[in-house]
Amino acid sequence: MLKNIWIRRILIVVIGVSIWHLPVPWELSQQSWQLFTIFFSAIIAIIISAFSVLSASLVALVVTVLTGTLTVETALSGFSESFMLLILAAFLVSKAVVRSGLGHRIALILIRKFGRSTLRLAYCITATDLLIGPAIPSNTARSGILFPIIEALSIDTDSRPDDASRSNTGSYLMMCGIVSLTISSSLWLTGMAANPIGVEIAAGYGISITFGSWLLAALVPCIAAFVLLPYLLYLIFPPSIQFTPEAPKKAREELQQMGRFKREEWITSGVFIGMVVFWGLASAMNLNLAIVAIAGLAVLMTTGVFQVEHLRSDGGDALEVFVWFSILYVMSNSLNDLGFMTTLGNQISQSLTGLSWQATYLALIILYVAIHYLFVSQTAHLLALYGVFLGVGIQAGVPAVLMALMLSFATNFFSALTPQASSGNALFAGSGYLESQDVYRNGLLVTVLNLIIFLLASPWILWVAQ
Amino acid sequence: MLKNIWIRRILIVVIGVSIWHLPVPWELSQQSWQLFTIFFSAIIAIIISAFSVLSASLVALVVTVLTGTLTVETALSGFSESFMLLILAAFLVSKAVVRSGLGHRIALILIRKFGRSTLRLAYCITATDLLIGPAIPSNTARSGILFPIIEALSIDTDSRPDDASRSNTGSYLMMCGIVSLTISSSLWLTGMAANPIGVEIAAGYGISITFGSWLLAALVPCIAAFVLLPYLLYLIFPPSIQFTPEAPKKAREELQQMGRFKREEWITSGVFIGMVVFWGLASAMNLNLAIVAIAGLAVLMTTGVFQVEHLRSDGGDALEVFVWFSILYVMSNSLNDLGFMTTLGNQISQSLTGLSWQATYLALIILYVAIHYLFVSQTAHLLALYGVFLGVGIQAGVPAVLMALMLSFATNFFSALTPQASSGNALFAGSGYLESQDVYRNGLLVTVLNLIIFLLASPWILWVAQ
Repeated sequence: MLKNIWIRRILIVVIGVSIWHLPVPWELSQQSWQLFTIFFSAIIAIIISAFSVLSASLVALVVTVLTGTLTVETALSGFSESFMLLILAAFLVSKAVVRSGLGHRIALILIRKFGRSTLRLAYCITATDLLIGPAIPSNTARSGILFPIIEALSIDTDSRPDDASRSNTGSYLMMCGIVSLTISSSLWLTGMAANPIGVEIAAGYGISITFGSWLLAALVPCIAAFVLLPYLLYLIFPPSIQFTPEAPKKAREELQQMGRFKREEWITSGVFIGMVVFWGLASAMNLNLAIVAIAGLAVLMTTGVFQVEHLRSDGGDALEVFVWFSILYVMSNSLNDLGFMTTLGNQISQSLTGLSWQATYLALIILYVAIHYLFVSQTAHLLALYGVFLGVGIQAGVPAVLMALMLSFATNFFSALTPQASSGNALFAGSGYLESQDVYRNGLLVTVLNLIIFLLASPWILWVAQ
Repeated sequence: MLKNIWIRRILIVVIGVSIWHLPVPWELSQQSWQLFTIFFSAIIAIIISAFSVLSASLVALVVTVLTGTLTVETALSGFSESFMLLILAAFLVSKAVVRSGLGHRIALILIRKFGRSTLRLAYCITATDLLIGPAIPSNTARSGILFPIIEALSIDTDSRPDDASRSNTGSYLMMCGIVSLTISSSLWLTGMAANPIGVEIAAGYGISITFGSWLLAALVPCIAAFVLLPYLLYLIFPPSIQFTPEAPKKAREELQQMGRFKREEWITSGVFIGMVVFWGLASAMNLNLAIVAIAGLAVLMTTGVFQVEHLRSDGGDALEVFVWFSILYVMSNSLNDLGFMTTLGNQISQSLTGLSWQATYLALIILYVAIHYLFVSQTAHLLALYGVFLGVGIQAGVPAVLMALMLSFATNFFSALTPQASSGNALFAGSGYLESQDVYRNGLLVTVLNLIIFLLASPWILWVAQ
């Protein structure tokens, strides 16, 4: 990594200007090539720490508009996407959960039971996520449930976002939140909003996938990932505090001192449970997920549990994520709308002719995952490339159901790849416990591990699904 | 004012439910009547302090969506309006101006010259605004220039937003910012974005208004308003600290201690001047105002003058205004789109038949201003009602050019009426120095005073414009 930030920045400008002036390949439009250049440069700038993710996004936005690559209206349209407001509202609700003391209490209860080591806490978080997975079919909403608990756990294990203590437990546990969502979303057909869309596309190829057949196929790789990933992450991104044998006893004492539920805790519990219930019922009741979260926030604000003053002091973190996520989302999404992603997918698939079906399968899945560096939404990725890759795989002789399921699983497990790879990452990435670089580095490693685990499970998937 | 907040809240619910179930008048659609009910109840709730402006907006948003009055997409669309992002970016830039020390320096220079009394500072602010008015044709952008200076002036006169000291000078000076915009926007045809639109609508009635004729007509009432309003506001909303005879001397000493410009100040000055220049050139260069502000913010962030940590701690205030303004804007705008405003305007104008032209003129102008309680944008108000009111006035025998000019002036001076009456108010209303109720009360008084001043100037306007 280059030491001087200005050298890195000049490098980014050189890279950007060079790509900009390359001959546009594959009959892509000039517009889509410009947008790709800006977006790609921004991503590289974040990865090599030339700019913070927020600065990179702001600069990219300004360049996009000033070069006429996107209109102002399009470039800003991400700010009113309902899942962006879901992230914003969930972020603020999670602050209320911590402020009300409810987060503290839940954390103490978990520490009392699992607090002897940070690793145990990580498993406890992941298990919770796996269990609520089928009921909350949005990983973003689920992140809104996990995040306040992980935040309270971090604080209660002496780890705060604004100083060196964040690496005590918080950074690791937040990253576990991101990792956990890769597994819980893969395990259940109803664990991520886009999963049923993939199943529908597969049905167009005559492949039938049910809730049960998905679960059965996912069971082996997901159990393996559940067992291995929190531990492997623990090795590659270790928390400074690992063993706290006295923590459960202290938690027990502190819980006794806390006494009964306070008014704020009752209200926050009610709101939190209400949000879980209505997020679960959202598709049945045709409720918008963001409105559920905003309604929860409204209750917390009108009852004074979360006050305007609290929003003023806690809201800056939420604003940061909201701004960069909205900007990057639009850029990736527009790149897709302009046909860039489909063209890229077609070019890649065409280059794979003449390989055995096993080699084609391997290459397709790896490339499908790698391309996710360019996406800021799992759903957009699936809509753009799932069909293309499935078709190419089937044509090359890959068993159709294996190809369909593996692409579906990949659409879930590549969510750890970058901070913006999934809207479910936003809260953790914006927690203050993780640098963008932490997420990029660990996200890549975790994605590779997931890739290995799921690919190794291919025989199992083929066996049970056929 | 009712003491118990829950009594006030029950009152709001009773009012809302009652209006909801009234027979829908004037062949309005059920949808527009529902939206009016929700919006009107929210405004009343804010005025009687039943809810904070943020809580009222959130509740209104949830009710609007859950009752099917607006779709989620429409209800959230305000978040990506470019003037909302102009407010957001200008807010953050103003924080950087204060943080960099530049705001402190400008404030000290002003205090050295005008700091003997708070009233002098108020006149100094208003004069600045009047002078830059013709160059910056957006009152929102202009608020982005005034706000950091007023904020620094407040802080440097020992007035902070988060405690009782805010009434020392800050509350009064922030309110002066809101008042100042009413005058500077009225004085110049290029002082507010919608002014030329009004002139164009008037041209459709055969009325010719030029930059010069506008200025000449506005001169007398605007000079009167400039002389009277800061002083009258000083009487009705007095700052606790009024005279500081030793302040100029202290400021001089402190300026000497400050020494030369620091790096942060150089960069911030450059950005600030650049924003002023490009805001001024925006329409000639076809630049979007928000992008200018975002570019300024991007420069401040990439140079490290304003850092991600600063945004995290300062951004909560900006987020608060961004959220409620976006929500209220969409509600008012949708009410307009649904034809509610036009119908209301028509009904009002029709009820005025049979009066003398002078009485019709008076009634039309007063009603035009009063209806602004329902609007969250000056431009939308002008587009919806300017033509209707102008037509009715001319038909009733009001001299056409007088009617046109007075409606144009009113479109500017009613901007003080509520916190959301103009996007130019957002920064001041969100500064922490003003309660919503302060703005509502003083805004009403200032609007009435402006109304009297401008109406009394009618003979002058008629004389010079005909």
